[in-house]
Amino acid sequence: MNEIRERVVVTEVGLRDGLQSIARIMPTEYKRRWIDAAYAAGVRHMEVASFVPAKLLPQMADAAEVIAHARRYADLHVSALVPNLKGAQHAIEAGAQRIVAPISVSVAHSLANVRKTPAAMLDAFAAMRELIDATARAGAPRVELIAGLSTVFGCTLQGAVPYADIAAIARGALQAGADVIALGDTTGEATPRQVGEVIERVRDVAGDRLRSLHFHDTRGLGLANTLVALRHGIREFDASLAGLGGCPHAPGATGNVNTEDLVFMLDSMGYDTGIDLALLLESRAVLAEALPGEPLYGYLARAGLPKQFADARRVASESAEHVASHS
Amino acid sequence: MNEIRERVVVTEVGLRDGLQSIARIMPTEYKRRWIDAAYAAGVRHMEVASFVPAKLLPQMADAAEVIAHARRYADLHVSALVPNLKGAQHAIEAGAQRIVAPISVSVAHSLANVRKTPAAMLDAFAAMRELIDATARAGAPRVELIAGLSTVFGCTLQGAVPYADIAAIARGALQAGADVIALGDTTGEATPRQVGEVIERVRDVAGDRLRSLHFHDTRGLGLANTLVALRHGIREFDASLAGLGGCPHAPGATGNVNTEDLVFMLDSMGYDTGIDLALLLESRAVLAEALPGEPLYGYLARAGLPKQFADARRVASESAEHVASHS
Repeated sequence: MNEIRERVVVTEVGLRDGLQSIARIMPTEYKRRWIDAAYAAGVRHMEVASFVPAKLLPQMADAAEVIAHARRYADLHVSALVPNLKGAQHAIEAGAQRIVAPISVSVAHSLANVRKTPAAMLDAFAAMRELIDATARAGAPRVELIAGLSTVFGCTLQGAVPYADIAAIARGALQAGADVIALGDTTGEATPRQVGEVIERVRDVAGDRLRSLHFHDTRGLGLANTLVALRHGIREFDASLAGLGGCPHAPGATGNVNTEDLVFMLDSMGYDTGIDLALLLESRAVLAEALPGEPLYGYLARAGLPKQFADARRVASESAEHVASHS
Repeated sequence: MNEIRERVVVTEVGLRDGLQSIARIMPTEYKRRWIDAAYAAGVRHMEVASFVPAKLLPQMADAAEVIAHARRYADLHVSALVPNLKGAQHAIEAGAQRIVAPISVSVAHSLANVRKTPAAMLDAFAAMRELIDATARAGAPRVELIAGLSTVFGCTLQGAVPYADIAAIARGALQAGADVIALGDTTGEATPRQVGEVIERVRDVAGDRLRSLHFHDTRGLGLANTLVALRHGIREFDASLAGLGGCPHAPGATGNVNTEDLVFMLDSMGYDTGIDLALLLESRAVLAEALPGEPLYGYLARAGLPKQFADARRVASESAEHVASHS
């Protein structure tokens, strides 16, 4: 009854990665309601926006407003994705406490996307580091800089990415000033054995500064990969409510791991996510209302909690009421 | 290049569990073609029918014909599900080499389904054992008797199933004459930590005679659960082509783990299934033709092989051609 459960952090990234991946624009008011509902369910880490030109990503045009809303919750950790120094500046001004700067470890992907090699991209980290330090010297709270390594587990252009390249970029990002490393399976190609091997290679150079994993469920392995990462000591994962942003049943699908299914798995294994599954499932209603017709995914949402879990929750809640009525 | 890969057996159960779970009847000719295509892809274990009264399960009325067809392949291991002694007799007469006799470990489920406690069901195993031994004494090849423990990981009526009950039924089944034990997540409620714990409890009483696991993907955990079972030494798994027989996106869904997705995961981890993924994916065409409009599932079928896997296969096939052209 008094088992101490190990904490696992689930970061809701649907407001960024999910919404960025669909054509429709979610009105700001619904983004606020989504944040409110996620917070009410116990989510304490959210990546809520990216700071990119609005003409490139109109879905993110209200990034500053959305961050301001999220910051109303004192114990919510609010992240934003930034592609460059200018984005970092806007994110910090808006109040983001964590900025995630992506860097592709695939040379082919990096050249195609930003016309720079991954190594050249490291300069951006140094510039962001300087900006953060200058801001901190001016008295502002210290912002955390996360190097978001992308295409780590495979690249649709290049194919396999050598482990040595991943380790080299991780080391370079830390040397250039990143606080921690996140690994992203951008293309949904990660497989279980590979996940363990990559984590060990990156940990060799990053140690405890390897913080989180970001899986997509393109080939149905998102939760299996999460299991391997847990076994290798990872305790932070990104996920999207309702698997928003990618259709797992369409060609080229790139949906994030589904938050509800991930929390269910973690819960069933005895990990403490701090998230109430029933409230989390209810929060899907915001998406259904904001994006009518948009497909919402999720196994748990369809099948429901198994009876044994529902029973356990009922007993727990009844004994809580019992305690409350006698206190 | 010469890595010795560990064998994992994947048993195709779509012809039994898949077809049994949909209302439509697949004509015998298509069942033959399905068996042919699976065999051509390298599948060497198939559960192809169940021997139950045709008025209860008209989908299985051609069980004997289907088994006769499967037995044309000398190195194919052909199983049938049998609910009782009469079914066992028919299956053996038809030529099944393995008979799977289900026994529910949930008392509530067993009483509701067969009006007998699990313990009383063990008598059936003893009778089947006698039948098999008598048949063998008469000179027929020895048939293997598999105790298929069902509702192992949870029951929709009873909720949680005590581990002690599972272990007791496993021990009882072996004592009554079962050769090996298979564990089935009938209700799709298995979760990763539980899978490891149940395997260890059953192994305590069954040792190496705990042979295979049968997962459903109701809550998206089929492959994650498989990963845990692999770690606990299990090397045989059931699966259904195209996840036939259950809609993972509908309430009460009970689809088996998808064969293609399972083989992809095993392949990616370096296990040798003997199954050619490209041919396996092609074999879905038989289902599409036989059951027009029936939903076919599968992540890999939609997303395709990652480029790095496709590349590795191309290189391997080119070097095989190279060797061939010089030999």
